[in-house]
Formats: sequence, structure tokens, C-alpha cells
Amino acid sequence: MDNQLSLCAQIKTADPIRYTPAGLPVLTLWLSHESWQNELGERYLAKMEMEAKLMGEAALSWQHRQGCMVRVSGFLAQKGRRYPRPVLHIQQIYEI
Amino acid sequence: MDNQLSLCAQIKTADPIRYTPAGLPVLTLWLSHESWQNELGERYLAKMEMEAKLMGEAALSWQHRQGCMVRVSGFLAQKGRRYPRPVLHIQQIYEI
Repeated sequence: MDNQLSLCAQIKTADPIRYTPAGLPVLTLWLSHESWQNELGERYLAKMEMEAKLMGEAALSWQHRQGCMVRVSGFLAQKGRRYPRPVLHIQQIYEI
Repeated sequence: MDNQLSLCAQIKTADPIRYTPAGLPVLTLWLSHESWQNELGERYLAKMEMEAKLMGEAALSWQHRQGCMVRVSGFLAQKGRRYPRPVLHIQQIYEI
């Protein structure tokens, strides 16, 4: 079932790398987005900050890239059972 | 700048229609999503609930469709200055 977000954003902050029990590196990024969008023919200034998660080798290469503008895509899932806020699970990330 | 979410979900609840000062109908929907996604070659069960907003004629035609499965697409924006949680501004909605 469809669950795909494509977003251009700035890496506002990056948490320190942590590791899963299986030893996989995990990087939490906080993305900041601002763009003009179209809503019923009117311009709408969409602003948003979103938590994002990057796993594996990519986590290591993106850990020190605060301030960088990126295009990311991936799926959304709630942070945890008691934390309904959606987190973006990054599947692709490019600098722009 | 990219800001586009494509999502299949169930309409869990629909708030009563309200109107903007300009008289435009606005419908707030609560979407429930669950799907298996791929994360580094592993299956990941993505669960999420998300607030969504539908404006104009479409708001009137979707106000009584609780329980319906839909495919929606649109952009994300934070709910308000003091409410950082992202809301989906629906630009397209289809029953599936």
C-alpha cells in the first residue's frame, strides 16, 4: 500500500549515531521544510519540521551534514506505540 | 520544492464540516494507515495515524465516508505555529 513521502528540506540537527542491538548504525535527523504550495488555486506557505531516521552505511556518511539542503524520500511510520507523531524512514537521500 | 505524500489509508473519523471566513467548506479527516515496508532489505510494519484536511466541494462529498479505504496525495504542513505535528493537505483523493 502506498506510503511514500518526497521532501526537500534542510538538515536542521543530527543526533549522535546510535546502534541497534544487531550493531546497525542509526542516525536521527531533524528536517526543516518551507515551500509555497497550491491549495485550491491559492498559494499556501507550507512550513514543517519532521524527525527522520537513516539506517546503515548512509547513517555514517550523513552524521556531520547539519545545515545541508537535501531531497529525501521514504515512508512514514509513527515513532512508537505511545508516540503517534510520524517519523520519516529515509530510503533515499541526495544533496541539492 | 518537493513536498508530496502519497498514502493509502482508511478514513478513521471525519470531523463535522466547518467553513473558512470566505465561506469555503473544510473537512478534517483522521487517516489510519498500516503497511509492510522495506527497510534495508527487512520487512517493517509501518503504522500511522495522520490528520488530513480537505477543502472546497470535495469536503462536502467526503464528509460521510467514515471507514472508507482511500488513496490520497498532497503536501504536509504543520498544524499551526504552536502545533508542530504535520497535517496532510489533500490535493487528490480516490476510493480504493
